[in-house]
Amino acid sequence: MSHEDYMLEALKLAQEAAECGETPVGAVIVDESGAIIGRGRNRTEERDATCHAELEAIREASKARGDFRLTGCTLYVTMEPCPMCAGGCMNSRVSRIVYGAKDARAGSLGSVINLYMERYGARAEITGGVCEEECKKLLSGFFKGIR
Amino acid sequence: MSHEDYMLEALKLAQEAAECGETPVGAVIVDESGAIIGRGRNRTEERDATCHAELEAIREASKARGDFRLTGCTLYVTMEPCPMCAGGCMNSRVSRIVYGAKDARAGSLGSVINLYMERYGARAEITGGVCEEECKKLLSGFFKGIR
Repeated sequence: MSHEDYMLEALKLAQEAAECGETPVGAVIVDESGAIIGRGRNRTEERDATCHAELEAIREASKARGDFRLTGCTLYVTMEPCPMCAGGCMNSRVSRIVYGAKDARAGSLGSVINLYMERYGARAEITGGVCEEECKKLLSGFFKGIR
Repeated sequence: MSHEDYMLEALKLAQEAAECGETPVGAVIVDESGAIIGRGRNRTEERDATCHAELEAIREASKARGDFRLTGCTLYVTMEPCPMCAGGCMNSRVSRIVYGAKDARAGSLGSVINLYMERYGARAEITGGVCEEECKKLLSGFFKGIR
């Protein structure tokens, strides 16, 4: 499966979030064998502010693996992670992050700051802009609906 | 109750974490009336990398309040929050953060960076150094035990 294939899985979860009135962001975590071991979508309104797609996916992947360390795994997310989620990626030690749309307001892999460029000693390979148009379209459609 | 009284509650949770082999960090969230509405302690080894004391306390407080927004609340934590937890404070909109010991490795309210000083538009009143010696002692005793 390609980056785009995994991002389409994350987009399905983002779509599910939108249908539930949540900001449409979805994430999946893929292990070294290419298997999806974690899935998550935004549940802030339903639960609490910690329930962003990335942290939900990290929780599920860690449960599946029986280890808080997700070294070797790749996180796919439809929108650039906020500081909480970029920090969660650091703490869980995912090796790669692939995101779709940039987030000018809270994006923490380059848009506002890049947390991995600060003195935390954490490393990950970062790729942005995968399925960017689809990810942006879902987000802008959602926010247009709210206003 | 004073800052120190609430920090002692957080310290009890940190002690509980230490007894379970987890990095000894504890947190409580206090609402406008002075009631503790959320408690959390580190459960990274037991569960996953998202289970830091602060996020656990935010989850419990949001559940108690029935709202992801914790505006008006104060978060007390024995150690300076990491990027994930400082980001969680922003997302949950806690109004005040009071911490004990600084964290030179990952502290994100001044030690490595101060997330609230970046262009996120988030605000909180921040106080460090409350019961600092007790918080530090618990942490250094734990890490000495590991080595």
